[in-house]
Amino acid sequence: MTSPSERRAHVVGLGLIGASVARSLRTTGWTVTGTDRDPGTVDRALELDIVSGAAMAPGTTLVVIATPAGSVASLATEVLAELEDPEAIVTDVAGVKSAIVAAVQDARFIGGHPMAGSEQRGLAAARDDLFRGCTWVLTPTAATETGHYSRLHGYLRELEANVIAIPADDHDRLVALASHVPHLLASALMNEASLAAEQDAVLLQLAAGGFRDMTRIAAGDPSIWPDVLFENREAITQTLHSLEARLANVRAALAEGRREEIATKLTLASEARRQLPGRALSADRLAYLRVAVSDRPGELATVTVAASDMAVNIFDIEIAHGIEGVGGTLLLAVDANHASRFRDALEGLGFSVTLER
Amino acid sequence: MTSPSERRAHVVGLGLIGASVARSLRTTGWTVTGTDRDPGTVDRALELDIVSGAAMAPGTTLVVIATPAGSVASLATEVLAELEDPEAIVTDVAGVKSAIVAAVQDARFIGGHPMAGSEQRGLAAARDDLFRGCTWVLTPTAATETGHYSRLHGYLRELEANVIAIPADDHDRLVALASHVPHLLASALMNEASLAAEQDAVLLQLAAGGFRDMTRIAAGDPSIWPDVLFENREAITQTLHSLEARLANVRAALAEGRREEIATKLTLASEARRQLPGRALSADRLAYLRVAVSDRPGELATVTVAASDMAVNIFDIEIAHGIEGVGGTLLLAVDANHASRFRDALEGLGFSVTLER
Repeated sequence: MTSPSERRAHVVGLGLIGASVARSLRTTGWTVTGTDRDPGTVDRALELDIVSGAAMAPGTTLVVIATPAGSVASLATEVLAELEDPEAIVTDVAGVKSAIVAAVQDARFIGGHPMAGSEQRGLAAARDDLFRGCTWVLTPTAATETGHYSRLHGYLRELEANVIAIPADDHDRLVALASHVPHLLASALMNEASLAAEQDAVLLQLAAGGFRDMTRIAAGDPSIWPDVLFENREAITQTLHSLEARLANVRAALAEGRREEIATKLTLASEARRQLPGRALSADRLAYLRVAVSDRPGELATVTVAASDMAVNIFDIEIAHGIEGVGGTLLLAVDANHASRFRDALEGLGFSVTLER
Repeated sequence: MTSPSERRAHVVGLGLIGASVARSLRTTGWTVTGTDRDPGTVDRALELDIVSGAAMAPGTTLVVIATPAGSVASLATEVLAELEDPEAIVTDVAGVKSAIVAAVQDARFIGGHPMAGSEQRGLAAARDDLFRGCTWVLTPTAATETGHYSRLHGYLRELEANVIAIPADDHDRLVALASHVPHLLASALMNEASLAAEQDAVLLQLAAGGFRDMTRIAAGDPSIWPDVLFENREAITQTLHSLEARLANVRAALAEGRREEIATKLTLASEARRQLPGRALSADRLAYLRVAVSDRPGELATVTVAASDMAVNIFDIEIAHGIEGVGGTLLLAVDANHASRFRDALEGLGFSVTLER
């Protein structure tokens, strides 16, 4: 057994995810080295004490490749050739897995994908708790040794990640639907609206909350997407096909007056969306409060301070309002056990509140 | 001239919008009567002093039909027959306009559609400031008299609504794109995900922020939609066609390796989304702060109290996080003039903050 103080890890690629992996591993007792194709990034990582050296140290038992998907297979192969320890593990964090897993057939390699928010970017935004509570997918294959898998699973559990194991093909099919196709839909809708707005700028004045929600992800950094989309084009193509068929079906139902069919589909979707699990709490333990607020400084503070004073945690928050509206509705997700007590407190402060579920 | 104290209005349909119209008009000096097909609703409106009587009073010069789209034309026709005053105005608030405007050809009728949030429902949620700052579309026709239009426009401006006039056909085409088709897309995506989740429940664990954003509106009350969708099926069908063509095009670009084309489209969409105007402030006057937070009670309060203390108004707020993540990123939209000062204050409190734009 290696004692925690002797554990050595190496991270290749010190962007937000790689640097956060380094920081997180250090909090659980690893000595972490790390490198990046940009020497300036390595220097900053050393300065910020994110890694303690740039070269992989002898005795390294865990290597995390945190580079863009296209470069993972060759880097992993290089590293595996360098690593002598048969017990050492190499993993990666790329968002598309099948091609990588097929290219790197080695008992010591296990593909991975931490589903951590990447709202912020770069080394400076790295956090040592980025993976706490996040879903971390591993994609073991028939070649994967149970011992290696168990050890990697254990390391990630120490970071408080929720580790799930699924085949690489399933992963790619599921993220196509959960992430890649939504991004394409949001972009298509935004481009359709831009075109219409060129002829009729008033359109943007009519684009309210729902439209804003549906197109929000289209605003994300476009440069990371072409790689991901081409890597996963097979699964994406299938999902796009299914969605196009659904939309064509809606058109037919509208043309043929099949009102019941439309109503049923919308009801199914509404129920399914309402059951979409919350995060830390499962959906049946979350309650939703709708609170009418104005846009004055301080309104939000009054609500959140009341929550804090009562030790009520707000798991989710958003403001729903018209495009140019002053005021609107605050939607709060809170622990269901505290919901009515919190509603009463807010009403006591003069707010108009609706409690759902 | 009628003095404000003598202005009499009547509202037909006392749901959230109708009752808010009644409340708002009263704040600007109108005496308001109102009715509803449900006698219990009328009783409650009288009790809550939302209306001062149920029967339309002699001398009424403004009637607002606030019932579902399907019943507006016949109710408006009835009311117009009853109203003797040639200067009286009848308007409505339905979300689809062409059919109504075509059916009610009368110089005294002007179609309308206030784009007010309807997150809450029913009489009890009515507010006298619901239309303050909201976009209120009017759809005058060639038959509309300028004097009538000017007067209605003036009444709505008194409610502090932003009144815009567009032809009914344009309105319907634009809301198809800005509202109706987004709802259908969100529902289709949610249903596709539900189907996949039946075979592989892990999908829902992979459905992070973007998926949640894109399907949020699908959770809305499904019962109001079939009417709206069938009323506006022509414009919706056209928009669905265009979107299906865009998605088919993406598939082709993926199959044929047209990477530049994909990159260009995503970049266009990203730029357009970033320019999507905010609400009270135009986009170039809003700045966005990303603040790393944990899910402890009080974190949100610390941020919003800091804003309140500095008189910085938070125009928009959301939490971006992984599905089961603890902590995440708070996205705040604030007046660009105060953004760096606010960032400094948050950093002083120990938060990690990124300022955009």
